[in-house]
This record gives sequence, structure tokens and C-alpha cells, in this order.
Amino acid sequence: MVTVGYLGPPGTFGEQAALLFDPSANFAGLQSHSAVVTSVARGEVDIGVAAIENSLEGAIGETIDSLIQHEGVVIRHELILPVEQCLIAAPGTTIPEIEVVLSHPAALAQCRSYLETVLPKARLEAALSTAAAVASAVKTPGTAAIGTARAAALNGAAILDRAIQDVKHNKTRFLALAKTDAEPTGDDKTSVAFTVAHDRPGTLIGVLGELSERHINLTRIESRPSREDLGIYIFLIDFQGHRTDPSVSEAIAAVRARSHYFRLLGSYPRFAEKV
Amino acid sequence: MVTVGYLGPPGTFGEQAALLFDPSANFAGLQSHSAVVTSVARGEVDIGVAAIENSLEGAIGETIDSLIQHEGVVIRHELILPVEQCLIAAPGTTIPEIEVVLSHPAALAQCRSYLETVLPKARLEAALSTAAAVASAVKTPGTAAIGTARAAALNGAAILDRAIQDVKHNKTRFLALAKTDAEPTGDDKTSVAFTVAHDRPGTLIGVLGELSERHINLTRIESRPSREDLGIYIFLIDFQGHRTDPSVSEAIAAVRARSHYFRLLGSYPRFAEKV
Repeated sequence: MVTVGYLGPPGTFGEQAALLFDPSANFAGLQSHSAVVTSVARGEVDIGVAAIENSLEGAIGETIDSLIQHEGVVIRHELILPVEQCLIAAPGTTIPEIEVVLSHPAALAQCRSYLETVLPKARLEAALSTAAAVASAVKTPGTAAIGTARAAALNGAAILDRAIQDVKHNKTRFLALAKTDAEPTGDDKTSVAFTVAHDRPGTLIGVLGELSERHINLTRIESRPSREDLGIYIFLIDFQGHRTDPSVSEAIAAVRARSHYFRLLGSYPRFAEKV
Repeated sequence: MVTVGYLGPPGTFGEQAALLFDPSANFAGLQSHSAVVTSVARGEVDIGVAAIENSLEGAIGETIDSLIQHEGVVIRHELILPVEQCLIAAPGTTIPEIEVVLSHPAALAQCRSYLETVLPKARLEAALSTAAAVASAVKTPGTAAIGTARAAALNGAAILDRAIQDVKHNKTRFLALAKTDAEPTGDDKTSVAFTVAHDRPGTLIGVLGELSERHINLTRIESRPSREDLGIYIFLIDFQGHRTDPSVSEAIAAVRARSHYFRLLGSYPRFAEKV
């Protein structure tokens, strides 16, 4: 049976994504996004599900950096999950009784306008995950947490309000990471990471031109610090097509030739959202 | 006298950057990076100093998003500050006594290898800022914080270890934001934000080509979520030159013509680091 690692504990959005990937797998709740990637690299899990991007907050740097660092880990699949944040507390709690709101800083940020409007006097406190926040809040009178409906159910807590995030269409993209990527399906994406000489005009544009010349659609570009110095970046790009498609294969070879550092992060089926 | 807002409380790296910008100013410690931007927009402070990018952790999305949202706020200056994280606790504490390490999640992430090596059994806990972590740790036996040497001094705490971040050359770039940008100095940078049609190959490359054709060096490209949907991005680019330079002025007009949304974020002197 396949073991799927995710950012635990149970009740996180990571667990929801892992369940969406394979509801019948064994699950392992891990400590951090980078622990998910490391566990795949070490063969401790078969698949690691890690958040890479949120439609409000942007890229999740820890996942990207860890993926780039672990040569043996590639992208096998992508998953897009709607994010519905709930206000959660011990059963019987009412909103006017709430003095403290506890959550992961990213979840607090996603609900900033709601908190300013509905709970302007509440003190905000940070937790290491939304699930840990719910587990703590349910035991603390006057404290609410922001987290998932599943975390409320797992902790015997009450949901005081639903979909409290500031932008209703809030989604997170997760990657399913493994030691091998996916076979072509006819509707695929490919991700690569690279660095270019940073002291000359046009080096990045030259690389991206290798895609546009071949009519390959760039779906995303993200820059990450190289950890050498400010101003030196590793670029992560996603584009349409599978690495075995002839034009994509040509483009990859051309990008590799123009790069200082280059790594193919894998080809995988494009996630089709159900509307 | 000029009032400078920064992410408080006193003892944060934000305060260090504000002191570097103008040591004789009035200072206002604010709640968040977005509060710094909002205070400039409302005229409550003359200058807002906010972190935009760290050499390990990458872009600070909250600052970028808030800057893009506030039309009246532009970049007047940039500042680059070395980040030296310290392990801080109540005077008399020794490292073997530490059971809990408290800090902002970004600071904990910056010191991950150190913590795994020196304090493998310590429990990590999140705080809303490094300065708040130090203030709390100094009152709690068995608890250390990660923060600045200045925060240790302000709280009467002891520094148990210095420069504990995993990469020694850790730097943060701050922006000084105001209602007007800066006059040309001969060594300047310009920042713009824009969106392009996202469903055709090559639209982003066309925009970047307007710079490379004019031999303008792109120093940075960052993508931020548009908050509309996953896959639709606002790009933030920095390049060399002042908006009043003829070739830069031409390039800006050409980029604007190719963009859906466009905003000039200002021209400002390039920060020259002292080696």
C-alpha cells in the first residue's frame, strides 16, 4: 500500500489534499513542508503532498526550496483545493466571548478583514499549524482558532462561522512529489528550475524565448533566492506540455544550454478543476 | 521632523532599518507590513520602512501586495541590512536548560540547522515577531527566543549565541516608502508592476523584451497572485536606471502599452553595500 506524507497533524489542508490524492493510502502527518520533501528523498514515504502556491498568499517558498535541493524528488501530480477557513471554538462559545484568535500566521492573514470587522478587539496569536490552533483553542475558554471544518470535527469543537477568508475564491495548489514523474496524458505540464548569469541584460528573456519561439505557454514563473546573495535568483517555471513531446523536449535542451544551473522537476497531468 | 513607521515593536530588524534610514527621525512602531504601507497612504507617517525581500526566505508578499494596492505610495529608497539572529534568554540561562525556542516562524526557519544540531530536543513555538518572542522568553524559565541583539538589550536579556542563522550572509532588503519617489542620482533603479494576458504564449516575454532591446538590466522579477484565481499573476520587476532617463522612459511607455494593468512604483537610488 502507498504511504502518503503531508504537513500534519490530521485536520490540516495538507491532509485534505492527501486524501484527495489517494483516499485509500496510508497517511503520515509530518512536521513541515520540507520534512515532506525529505521523507520522499529518503524513501520513508512513497508520495509527499506539499502546498506550493495559494491564490491569495502566493508561493510557499519552503516547498520550492526543498524540492530544488533534493535532486531525487520530482513532481508526479498537482492538486488544487478550495480553502475554506472556519472560526472554531469549544462548543457553547459565542462570538462576543472571544478574546483571542489563534492560528497559523498565513491563515490569520487570509482572514484579516473578517477579523477587523467581526472581532476588532480580539488579540491575534500565532500557532505552528491551523490544526494545532484548533486543538489548543478547544481547551481554552475565550479563545477561538481559524482552521478547517475537519479539524473542528477531529477535536470535538464547534464551527462558529464558515468561509471567513477575505477572498471567497481562495485556492491552494499542492504537488504530489515522488521519485519518478508521470507518463504523458495529452494534457500535461512540465516544471524546471534554472539560474542564469545575473549581470547581463536579457539573459532571462533569452531563456523564456526558447519557450515562446516554440509556442509553448508559460503558465508560471517564480523567483527564489539562490542563498548566495540578494539579487541572485533561482527561477522556477511551469509550462504546458510533457517532457516527451518533441517541441517541449527541444525547448528543455535549449533552456538547459543557456542556464548555469538546471534541473528538470518533472512532467505531470494538468489538474482539471470541477466547476 | 520626519516620522518613520516600521514593523514594531522596538528591537525588530524593521527598527534597525528605520534607524539606518534616518537616525534622527521620530519613529512609530506599527503592527504589520501592510500597516506600514497604509500609514504612508493616509499621511500618518512621512516614510514607511518595510521589508520586501530576504536573501534566504525570498519575497515578503504582504509588503508587495500592500504596495501594489495603495496607488499613492511609491518607493523612495532601498536599504540592505545584514541579518544576525541571536539565541536570547533570561540572564543566567545556559543552552542545556532550554526546552522551548520561541520566534517568528521566518526566524525559526532561518535557524533550522542550528536548532537541529544544538537544540535537537527543544520544542519550537511561534510568535508574532522576533521582538515579541524576546520579551516573552526573558520572563519564562527554560524558554529562549531567536531575535536581534537590540531586542536582547531592550529587554534586559542575555545573548547565548550570535549569528545562528544557517547561512551566514543573510540579508534583508527594505524599502523606504513615501508619497513621492527620488530624484536621479546617476545610479538608480526603477520598479513597476503589471499584468499581461495570461492565455497566450510569449506575452510576458514581449514585455521583458522591451527592456533587453534597450540594454536595460532587469535586476529582479517577482510574481504575486492577482487574487482573482490561481494562474493569474501580477509581475513586479526592478531594473537599472531612473524613470527620467530617455531609454528607461521609452521602455516604461512600451511596457505600459503591452500591459493590462500597469503601475510605476518609483525610481530610487541603488543601495551601495559597504563591504
